Amino acid sequence: MKLAFNKRLRQICSKKSNLLCIGLDPDPDKMPVRQDKSILGVESFIKDVIASTIDICPVYKPNFAFYERFGSKGYAMLEKIVDFINGRALVIADAKRGDIGNSSKQYAIAILNKMGCDAITVSPYMGRDSILPFTSDSSKGVFILGLTSNTSALEFQGLSANGVPIYEKVCELALEINKNNNIGLVIGATHNNEIKKIRTKTQGLSWLIPGIGNQGGDLDNAVKVSNHNGIGIINVSRSILYAGSGSLNDIIDSAHKYTKKIRDLM
Amino acid sequence: MKLAFNKRLRQICSKKSNLLCIGLDPDPDKMPVRQDKSILGVESFIKDVIASTIDICPVYKPNFAFYERFGSKGYAMLEKIVDFINGRALVIADAKRGDIGNSSKQYAIAILNKMGCDAITVSPYMGRDSILPFTSDSSKGVFILGLTSNTSALEFQGLSANGVPIYEKVCELALEINKNNNIGLVIGATHNNEIKKIRTKTQGLSWLIPGIGNQGGDLDNAVKVSNHNGIGIINVSRSILYAGSGSLNDIIDSAHKYTKKIRDLM
Repeated sequence: MKLAFNKRLRQICSKKSNLLCIGLDPDPDKMPVRQDKSILGVESFIKDVIASTIDICPVYKPNFAFYERFGSKGYAMLEKIVDFINGRALVIADAKRGDIGNSSKQYAIAILNKMGCDAITVSPYMGRDSILPFTSDSSKGVFILGLTSNTSALEFQGLSANGVPIYEKVCELALEINKNNNIGLVIGATHNNEIKKIRTKTQGLSWLIPGIGNQGGDLDNAVKVSNHNGIGIINVSRSILYAGSGSLNDIIDSAHKYTKKIRDLM
Repeated sequence: MKLAFNKRLRQICSKKSNLLCIGLDPDPDKMPVRQDKSILGVESFIKDVIASTIDICPVYKPNFAFYERFGSKGYAMLEKIVDFINGRALVIADAKRGDIGNSSKQYAIAILNKMGCDAITVSPYMGRDSILPFTSDSSKGVFILGLTSNTSALEFQGLSANGVPIYEKVCELALEINKNNNIGLVIGATHNNEIKKIRTKTQGLSWLIPGIGNQGGDLDNAVKVSNHNGIGIINVSRSILYAGSGSLNDIIDSAHKYTKKIRDLM
């Protein structure tokens, strides 16, 4: 019998004694001048980052935008990167998909089955029938956007319906559909005041936490609160991938620095 | 100077005297048994549909899920299909993307620039900074999910903040950011009661209207209401692509049947 995703996540984090998720977002505008920005250069760079950190890193999160930017060849690169990881860490497809049921089903086949990612991020705007098709395989995780880390996150997520903000309604749905123990939430670390309250209401759900590093979220608070009654993994993208001079040594140092901080808090 | 997207849309609909948008969603589960379901077979089928309808059809809308299902080769097929249309009709990328600003920017480059689609559908859950990166080129359109056609659409979209449903708040944002005359909304035809009210509040915005055909939306009402103070295009996917026996003749007949109905209402 397959292990439920939330258990798989806990298992690998425990094995590597880490809650770090490295965001694999190859942004040509942020790469050092000397770096080969061709598609082969980027593939090689990302594989080097993975090879140098996979002993300590339990989860990688490629954001699809940075691969689709290269067109079908970028999509093919992403397939190769998931193959390269090959089960040594979990892969969260940061794809933010979500469509009417039959279309969501195709995205689930594409990203979870065919590409073989372990989990996916999905947008809840269209309601539960846009999310459920992603959830049928209990070994695959579904991280629903709850309260995101960006500046305008609260524009709609923070609107209050009968005193309950929309993001809380989304959290309630996430809890309700966690029958296979494979549902998670994206909760931005930039919302220090809200996250404690949300954590008490999302018993057992995994959290994927962006917003640490460049976006200014508080690591201490994020690790402590998010791991209170479920597992919370901390995504760091730019602050690792473009650390210091952008050399592989600086990248490795940054991954180790975040790992040490996280371990001290665990 | 480039023409704004909403003007381009009006121009091509006027030229072809039609408001039909054919949804290009190659669903292996719905194809007739005799059809070649390989990637080459699907590409050939979609190109046949386009070649047989492009004299009357102003807009095509491929849903990315049905291409990503084939992996990077499906993504490459989609690139070839957009190239095949080659400006003879507008292409709306039904991709439902939306992410933090810098990631949305990469999706915009990928889909509007590199792939060359004329417009894209985007999800508003993350607020305006997830949408604005798609809007900078006035010749490219951005259809924001407003009130969608699926069964659980109202689960979050219908929640009311101080008496105003979330979808109306999204419509207000769409109107506010239509400075370049390139913003549109996705408004499902299945919401007969709501659409008239929304139309009065979305002066000048283009509407993309799913939900006609299999989903049960009312064509008469959709055409009349949506074209009241802006342009409204009617998407039909399954009822054309899998019409009758699924033969090319049945597909052409169905496209002509919808075109006649729309022209009678225009």
